[in-house]
Amino acid sequence: MSRWQPDARQRLERAAIDLFTEQGFAATTVPQITARAGLTTRTFFRHFADKREVLFGGAEIPAFATRLIAEAPPSLDPVTLITGGLETVAETRFEGRREEVRERRAIIRSDEGLRERDLRKRADLRDAIRAGFVSRGTEPVMATLLAEISVTVLYVALDEWLDQDGDRKLAEIMLDTLASLQATLAAYPAGSRDAPGSS
Amino acid sequence: MSRWQPDARQRLERAAIDLFTEQGFAATTVPQITARAGLTTRTFFRHFADKREVLFGGAEIPAFATRLIAEAPPSLDPVTLITGGLETVAETRFEGRREEVRERRAIIRSDEGLRERDLRKRADLRDAIRAGFVSRGTEPVMATLLAEISVTVLYVALDEWLDQDGDRKLAEIMLDTLASLQATLAAYPAGSRDAPGSS
Repeated sequence: MSRWQPDARQRLERAAIDLFTEQGFAATTVPQITARAGLTTRTFFRHFADKREVLFGGAEIPAFATRLIAEAPPSLDPVTLITGGLETVAETRFEGRREEVRERRAIIRSDEGLRERDLRKRADLRDAIRAGFVSRGTEPVMATLLAEISVTVLYVALDEWLDQDGDRKLAEIMLDTLASLQATLAAYPAGSRDAPGSS
Repeated sequence: MSRWQPDARQRLERAAIDLFTEQGFAATTVPQITARAGLTTRTFFRHFADKREVLFGGAEIPAFATRLIAEAPPSLDPVTLITGGLETVAETRFEGRREEVRERRAIIRSDEGLRERDLRKRADLRDAIRAGFVSRGTEPVMATLLAEISVTVLYVALDEWLDQDGDRKLAEIMLDTLASLQATLAAYPAGSRDAPGSS
């Protein structure tokens, strides 16, 4: 009945984002999305569990992150691993698609349920990065910290990339973000202080 | 009809945690909690919006964090501010209540809806800390990074404090966590690298 549609996923994403933007996320139904894309609801549910998932790109990113980190050469230090992973993500998933990523963000921000799903996705990514570090022998607490840093730098840099007036590359912004965090933390060693509240 | 109950909130929390632990979160109703505590549902809803909120301690912590950071002396560096704030939180909210905090964590982990609420609470705290830094003139991107670091150190240290066999203080674990993150990041400056994926 239906021929294989090699670009079905992209067409569904495009139609969904357009409809969410035009009439709101809550008011948009899956049949409306498939009608706009010229595809069946059956095809939709072969690609996405529900209409929310159209906005979150799929489960393959966390698995990819785990593998990338777990399989990197054992000699690589954690900061190099993080920056290398972030660069790969920036170049394969984001660079060249700024307008679309900006539209997605606006839709997610418009809906409380989507904001919660977004937090869950970030937590999933963090857990996946953590698993990658643990499987290469990083001590668990440090693996958690490094995973949090990675996700923080990714999302902080993404926002800056989307909000900038200029044309800086995402990978470059990520590197600057991490470097500036390192510089600030290095400037003030914890422990050598007389802190407020520690009386 | 009902006298003022100075310890009503604590009694409701204790009854709720006991019931959640005994029979599960989903199976526990507000009337069961109030019956166990010997109080009315009306009193319950004066203290908590719903049964989930019993586990999350109330909205005053983010507001407290914003104020603490915003009002600290302008000369304090960000790391001193973070460690001081974490120490205050450790000593006023957690130290001496390890068993209860452990029970809460087990309940939250048992339920997907609670795990999502927990993520939302962490995001609220991060936003509050960020607001504190912004209001003392910290540049917005750095404020976000510092807020993420604070929340990360808080939750990573909390888990370690709950999981330890020994008797180390939460504030001490927090300080060690931050210091070890600083040391790892300082050892490998970003930018001076030949990273995987950057061909």
